[in-house]
Amino acid sequence: MSAPTRDALHFPPSSRQPIEPYLPSSNLSASQIRPFTTLTYATSLDHALSLSPGVQTALSGPESKAMTHYLRSKHDAILIGAGTAIADNPSLNCRIEGVGGYGGNGLEGQPRPVVIDPRGRWNVSEESKIVRLAAEGRGRGPWVIMREDVDSSIREAREKALNTVGGRVLTLPSTCSSLDWREILRLLAREGVRSVMIEGGGVVINDLLGPRYFSLIDSVIVTIAPTWLGKGSLQVCPDERVDEQGRKVAVGRLKDLRWVPLGEDVVLCGRPEIG
Amino acid sequence: MSAPTRDALHFPPSSRQPIEPYLPSSNLSASQIRPFTTLTYATSLDHALSLSPGVQTALSGPESKAMTHYLRSKHDAILIGAGTAIADNPSLNCRIEGVGGYGGNGLEGQPRPVVIDPRGRWNVSEESKIVRLAAEGRGRGPWVIMREDVDSSIREAREKALNTVGGRVLTLPSTCSSLDWREILRLLAREGVRSVMIEGGGVVINDLLGPRYFSLIDSVIVTIAPTWLGKGSLQVCPDERVDEQGRKVAVGRLKDLRWVPLGEDVVLCGRPEIG
Ligand SMILES: NC(=O)c1ccc[n+]([C@@H]2O[C@H](COP(=O)([O-])OP(=O)(O)OC[C@H]3O[C@@H](n4cnc5c(N)ncnc54)[C@H](OP(=O)(O)O)[C@@H]3O)[C@@H](O)[C@H]2O)c1
Ligand SMILES: NC(=O)c1ccc[n+]([C@@H]2O[C@H](COP(=O)([O-])OP(=O)(O)OC[C@H]3O[C@@H](n4cnc5c(N)ncnc54)[C@H](OP(=O)(O)O)[C@@H]3O)[C@@H](O)[C@H]2O)c1
Repeated sequence: MSAPTRDALHFPPSSRQPIEPYLPSSNLSASQIRPFTTLTYATSLDHALSLSPGVQTALSGPESKAMTHYLRSKHDAILIGAGTAIADNPSLNCRIEGVGGYGGNGLEGQPRPVVIDPRGRWNVSEESKIVRLAAEGRGRGPWVIMREDVDSSIREAREKALNTVGGRVLTLPSTCSSLDWREILRLLAREGVRSVMIEGGGVVINDLLGPRYFSLIDSVIVTIAPTWLGKGSLQVCPDERVDEQGRKVAVGRLKDLRWVPLGEDVVLCGRPEIG
Repeated sequence: MSAPTRDALHFPPSSRQPIEPYLPSSNLSASQIRPFTTLTYATSLDHALSLSPGVQTALSGPESKAMTHYLRSKHDAILIGAGTAIADNPSLNCRIEGVGGYGGNGLEGQPRPVVIDPRGRWNVSEESKIVRLAAEGRGRGPWVIMREDVDSSIREAREKALNTVGGRVLTLPSTCSSLDWREILRLLAREGVRSVMIEGGGVVINDLLGPRYFSLIDSVIVTIAPTWLGKGSLQVCPDERVDEQGRKVAVGRLKDLRWVPLGEDVVLCGRPEIG
C-alpha cells in the first residue's frame, strides 16, 4: 500500500454514517438484471446545475466534494453524458484517501467511468483527464456507450484512445436518437457492473427524474448549495407528469428521506416514491 | 384570553430555537427607514413554487405550515403580490396557538396583511377570506398598495370593501409599471411597520432575489420539500447578474446560514451575502 498522495480527500466517519443506508450493499449479486442505481447531483437554490449550459460551476463546498468521492468509492461505475465529458473534461476518478492511486492497492475502490455518447461526439484522447489518470494508475480506463450504427471511423478512433488504458467502446442498438435507460443499465449489468452512480449533466438528470425512468433509480443523493445562479443557468426540470384526468401532478417524490447539513450545503438522501 | 380554537396550530419550542436568530428583534425602533424584511417561500427540488402559475400547491408538510404561522406572529406585516391574492384567495392571518383570535387577546400577534396591487386587479370584497377573517376578529384588515394614478372608481370600490374591516388603500407614485421596492418598504415604515415578512408569489420573490433588490432583505427563510414538480411549474429564478467583465456570476448567496430539517422538509435560514 503506497502513502496517500497530497491531493487525497478525507470524508470523516461521522459524515459517512447518515448516508450509509442509501449506498449499494457491499454484497450485491453479479447476476442482477440492472445495477443498483444512484442518481446524484449538486444544485443551487434555483435548481441550476451550472451558471450556463456547458460551463463547469463550483457549486458545493469542500465537504460535499469529499462526499462525492466517497460515494464514488462505493460504486462499481460512475456515469455521465457526453455533454459533461465535453464541457468539463472531468477526472471522474475517486480521490478518497485509501483507494487505489491514493494510498490503496492497484485500482481498489476506483469506479469505472462510463460516458453515454451515442454519436461519438466526445473526442477522447490521451490528453483527456480521464485517460491521463488511467495511464497513471489513478483511475480505470473509461467505457464509452455508443449507438451501434455510429460511423466506423469515429468508433475506431475512440477505441484507439481508450484501449491503451483499458477502456472500451460498448454499443447499443437504437431505433431513435436517444438510448433507452433500461437498455443502458442492462448492458452495464451484463458487463459485471453491480452498482452505478449517475452524476449528470442536465440532459441525463432530467431524463432520469422524468416520468419514464424515475422508477429505475434506487437512491437519490442531491446536494443543495445556498446560492442562486439566476436566469440562463442549466436547470434541473424534468418533464411534467399528468394523471388519468390529464391534470398536472408532481413528477416524483422521495421517501425514507434524510436531510444532512454538510458544511454550507445540505445533502438530501432518499428513495423514489413511485405512484 | 379566550380558549384556543380548534384550528389553532402549534409550533414547539424545540423547533423555534434554531430559527430564532433569523427573526426580527422584539425591540425594533419605530423610526427605521425600512422595516426588517424577511423573505420566505416554499419550493420543490426543482425550485417550483406551484405546479402551474396561478395554481395553489401544497408543497411543504404540516410542520412547515406551523412554522410559517409562527413566523407570521413575529412580524408586524406580511406581504404578497396581487397574483397570489387573486389565485389563492389566501387567509393571510396567523393561526398559531395563543395569538388574537386563536386563544389570545384582541389582535395581539396578528400581522397586517399587505397586498401589492398596483392596478387594483384584486377584486377584494366581503367574500375574500382575508376580509372575512378580519370581520371575525381573527386577522387585521388588509392594506392594498396601489399606484397613485389608478382609476378612482377602482380605488373607491376597493376602499369600500377594506374600510369596513379596518383595511386601507395606500398609494405610491410611479413612473413605470412596477413599483420600486425601496419605496414600498419606506412606505410601510412610515405607516409604523417595523418588520415585514414577504411570502410570494413568483414575481415578488424573483424580483427581490434579483441583483437590484437582494440587499434590501435582512433574512431569508426557504422551505424545500422533497418533490419535483416538472416542466410548466412556476419557478424561482431571479434575473442574472454579470460582473464588470460582463461574465455571468451567481446572483446571490446566503451567509450565517443554518439548514433545519423539519418533518419531511428542510428549512434554510440565512442572511444575504452581498457582493
Ligand atoms: N451540478 C452537477 O451536479 C453537474 C454534474 C454534471 C454536469 N454538470 C454540468 O452539466 C453540463 C452538461 O450537461 P448537458 O445537459 O450538456 O449534458 P449531459 O447530460 O452530460 O450529456 C447529454 C448528452 O449525452 C448524451 N446522452 C445522454 N443521455 C442519453 C440517452 N439516454 N441516449 C442517448 N444519448 C444520451 C446525448 O448526446 P448527443 O447530444 O450526442 O445525442 C446528450 O446530448 C455542464 O455544464 C456540466 O458542468 C453539472
Ligand atoms: N410556494 C410558495 O411559497 C408560494 C407563496 C406565494 C404564492 N405562491 C404561488 O405563486 C403564484 C402567484 O405568483 P405570481 O407570480 O403570479 O404573483 P405574485 O408575485 O403574487 O404577484 C405578482 C403581481 O403583483 C404585482 N406586483 C408585485 N411586485 C410588484 C412591484 N414591485 N411593483 C408593482 N407591482 C408588483 C404585479 O401586479 P400587476 O400584474 O397588476 O402589475 C404582479 O404581476 C400562485 O400560484 C401561488 O400559489 C407560492
